[in-house]
Amino acid sequence: MSKLPKALQDLIDELSLLPGVGPRTAERYAYYILKADQNKSGRLARALENVHAGVKHCPKTFALIDADQEVSPLYEDPARDKQQVAVVEDPFDVISLEKTGKYSGTYHVLGGVLSPIDGVTPDSLRIKELIQRVKDDDVSEVILATNASVEGESTALYIQKQLEEDDVNVSRLARGLPVGVDLEYADQITLSRALEGRQTV
Amino acid sequence: MSKLPKALQDLIDELSLLPGVGPRTAERYAYYILKADQNKSGRLARALENVHAGVKHCPKTFALIDADQEVSPLYEDPARDKQQVAVVEDPFDVISLEKTGKYSGTYHVLGGVLSPIDGVTPDSLRIKELIQRVKDDDVSEVILATNASVEGESTALYIQKQLEEDDVNVSRLARGLPVGVDLEYADQITLSRALEGRQTV
Repeated sequence: MSKLPKALQDLIDELSLLPGVGPRTAERYAYYILKADQNKSGRLARALENVHAGVKHCPKTFALIDADQEVSPLYEDPARDKQQVAVVEDPFDVISLEKTGKYSGTYHVLGGVLSPIDGVTPDSLRIKELIQRVKDDDVSEVILATNASVEGESTALYIQKQLEEDDVNVSRLARGLPVGVDLEYADQITLSRALEGRQTV
Repeated sequence: MSKLPKALQDLIDELSLLPGVGPRTAERYAYYILKADQNKSGRLARALENVHAGVKHCPKTFALIDADQEVSPLYEDPARDKQQVAVVEDPFDVISLEKTGKYSGTYHVLGGVLSPIDGVTPDSLRIKELIQRVKDDDVSEVILATNASVEGESTALYIQKQLEEDDVNVSRLARGLPVGVDLEYADQITLSRALEGRQTV
């Protein structure tokens, strides 16, 4: 039985640990890296080594920031409304919302969603920090912008309950038909949400 | 516009260079690496740095071997028939054929397939080396085991022509129905090949 060279097998094993990467995909990546020139794999290796030291969480919004920044530049920006806070699951959701160009408030990154089966309890998310921030920054609106998944919905519901006593408006991203989708191809839950959330024109 | 921390963006950019990895997949990998502990990314970084130095091509079969090996252990194995040579496109094809456990000859890795549109000419493959090896090792059978793609077929045809003058049997892997497949789902070309290659029982 022929075996792959150890250095190549090591690389395949390490690449297989990435999410959604099976042994065949890892083989493809490894072979590509091997065929590419050494500078390319060197750059990827350096990027991997630097990523932990170069990135930290903003202590206020928990967005990802450069290690030499104090707080998120977006939070410090005087043009952004600190009294409006969009609550998102992970740091990339901030980028998605920013791309719309329609939001001028700030963000709060939960770091996940409630999922008892995976051991994610309210304590492992930054919910306490959100409640503290609502008080500290005298927040007037919390926009629950978690995903439209079961976990996202229940996390939003949980946070909503936690904020009931505070004098703050809590809103949720609208559910409805995605733009460009035909009625007949929309699933029933999306369609019922679109019906429930209909607006007078 | 919020930007990702530089170290994270660098990692995403480098990961996007892998084959079939778009910006979203690269983000997912990078975020996973960032959330995982530092040892994991360190191990991947070291594997990347070592892969070029730790792997070389066997000068005889062009299979991938450890840098400290002279020739492929499979080629040196006295139990393997050096007069039978399976010609494959890339080093992983060797592993696939070995897994069958039905082959006791040796291999020759071409390093690709003829593809004029990508600039891959006969000179960029190890065809000359194959012809030399047929002479040196007094090879009795060359099994053309390139992929069943257009490029694989034309590469096989090219090699077959090159070997016409030599006193060597040239065979090709059988085309036909893959095991477990229903007739009605097989494509027409596969089905016509299966018909052409039918065998008396």
